[in-house]
Amino acid sequence: MRTKVILDVDTGIDDALAIAFLLGKKEVDVIGITTCFGNVTVQTATENTLNLLHLLGRDDIKVYPGADRPWSGREWIIGEHLHRIHGYNGIGNVELDRSLNEAEKITAWQFMAESARRYGDELMLICVGPLTNLANAIRLDKEAIASCQRITLMDGALTVSGNISPYAEANVYNDSEAAEYVLSSGIDVNMIGLDVTLQTIVTDRELGFWQTLNTLKSRKLFEIAAYYYFNEFKEVKGGALHDPLAVEAAVNPEIADDWLRINLTVDQEGVTRGRIHTTKELMSREHKNVSYALNVDADTFIKRFADTVSEVLK
Amino acid sequence: MRTKVILDVDTGIDDALAIAFLLGKKEVDVIGITTCFGNVTVQTATENTLNLLHLLGRDDIKVYPGADRPWSGREWIIGEHLHRIHGYNGIGNVELDRSLNEAEKITAWQFMAESARRYGDELMLICVGPLTNLANAIRLDKEAIASCQRITLMDGALTVSGNISPYAEANVYNDSEAAEYVLSSGIDVNMIGLDVTLQTIVTDRELGFWQTLNTLKSRKLFEIAAYYYFNEFKEVKGGALHDPLAVEAAVNPEIADDWLRINLTVDQEGVTRGRIHTTKELMSREHKNVSYALNVDADTFIKRFADTVSEVLK
Repeated sequence: MRTKVILDVDTGIDDALAIAFLLGKKEVDVIGITTCFGNVTVQTATENTLNLLHLLGRDDIKVYPGADRPWSGREWIIGEHLHRIHGYNGIGNVELDRSLNEAEKITAWQFMAESARRYGDELMLICVGPLTNLANAIRLDKEAIASCQRITLMDGALTVSGNISPYAEANVYNDSEAAEYVLSSGIDVNMIGLDVTLQTIVTDRELGFWQTLNTLKSRKLFEIAAYYYFNEFKEVKGGALHDPLAVEAAVNPEIADDWLRINLTVDQEGVTRGRIHTTKELMSREHKNVSYALNVDADTFIKRFADTVSEVLK
Repeated sequence: MRTKVILDVDTGIDDALAIAFLLGKKEVDVIGITTCFGNVTVQTATENTLNLLHLLGRDDIKVYPGADRPWSGREWIIGEHLHRIHGYNGIGNVELDRSLNEAEKITAWQFMAESARRYGDELMLICVGPLTNLANAIRLDKEAIASCQRITLMDGALTVSGNISPYAEANVYNDSEAAEYVLSSGIDVNMIGLDVTLQTIVTDRELGFWQTLNTLKSRKLFEIAAYYYFNEFKEVKGGALHDPLAVEAAVNPEIADDWLRINLTVDQEGVTRGRIHTTKELMSREHKNVSYALNVDADTFIKRFADTVSEVLK
């Protein structure tokens, strides 16, 4: 039986690249994409995802909208720094044709839990936004979610300084309570944090050839990527393939050659909010539910990413 | 040629255990012990070390006093928390006979640098206190220190919360400037942090048999250990073999099965002072000068520690 995948996104430029990459992974079936607030509002994430699937000729994949704000309940306002990183529309200010599809009526977490009940260990979850949807799904049906084949998260900064503060990675920070709930649930998760994504820096040297494919798909996706990765206004050309690396690690965990088994907690207050770490008490627990990647074969991954996506763009 | 070792200590109960353990390591020659402020003042650390060597019948080993305060220049005051952990005299309020030896006249760092020049890669350094002496030695003769066979530090809390603050391990915290100097020097070091020492919890189940040896050495060392590890006033009986694990890892690095290659920096200000982590910029450097232990074979180590020390105590 082919493995089924649900990808949870806050699309976002690297989310868009993760979607295209996942669609090129012939060894899995994408049974749905769920959306969350984060890089953009959940409404924008949903629209971007629908329009991107339309561009890539995959209108058959349904989109399930999820949380519009973190568990704390505070309204989600898109900061100016996010506009700088992802553009005003979340996908580098690139205009895509509108999909005729609409988002599904059931929520992201209902879809996750129902799919987990139906497919059990034939299902993989990949979450590359805040952990609100996954936390809600666990609250809804922990046993079902625990039965999944694998849950891969793009989350955390364990040995490296953060990207939203010196201590925190943005996905954990953006809903630190949901992150704590997921990590302390005892459910096994594989985490791809900044510790490894920052090893995967791409420039237009690696992705520039997408332009030569000369299709609408390739022109649009290159333009989206270019805003984030090799925008002329950026001091340093290039950037990390955060969300795509989580897709690769979900399908091929051996891309990371060093998974640390650990139990983690999340700081909830003060300047270090969103920081992840273990504690003496957590260390003494026999079962370690997090496998945290500390090293990755970046060259193999970047080449595989560029080639796989280029096939999708032809 | 047998490997020569200099051990740098702030004796301290677990330092005392590390000294006894190292003396039992027949594969190396201890050519001197250097002392530093930290758990106690440098004067007390020096006295405790001389008296302990006398107790263990090793008056032949010379003691070289080092720094009495951190690089910042602030006076080193022993806090009440240190008295609780190590006793008022640093060795669990246990009285030892006074050594007739006196401390050497040349400083800890002069001795380190001279020995490194003389012995090069036949010399190992093991530092289990603040890094002030090692930093001074590097400042004195970086090339010589870099030529050592191996430098092993008991320092840091990378994936785990700290012991002197939620963010910092005490040795790094106690001279965060010297720690930054050592870690950014480019010189290769092996670090044994709380990430692994907290995996090595002993109780009187493992060490109680020292009492049955019924020698002065065994009675005194058990009494010293008991203050730290199984004191009747402690809520939790037992504790981590911090400094002894650094000795084991120096002589047998394979006791840690998971050494992360990384470049580290030290927070110097604010609530996270003394926190170690890498950064995007440090990650991009080809040479990683720190090997940081993340997992250790605790059972093998604890048994080896108990047995090796018991031989010394007979």
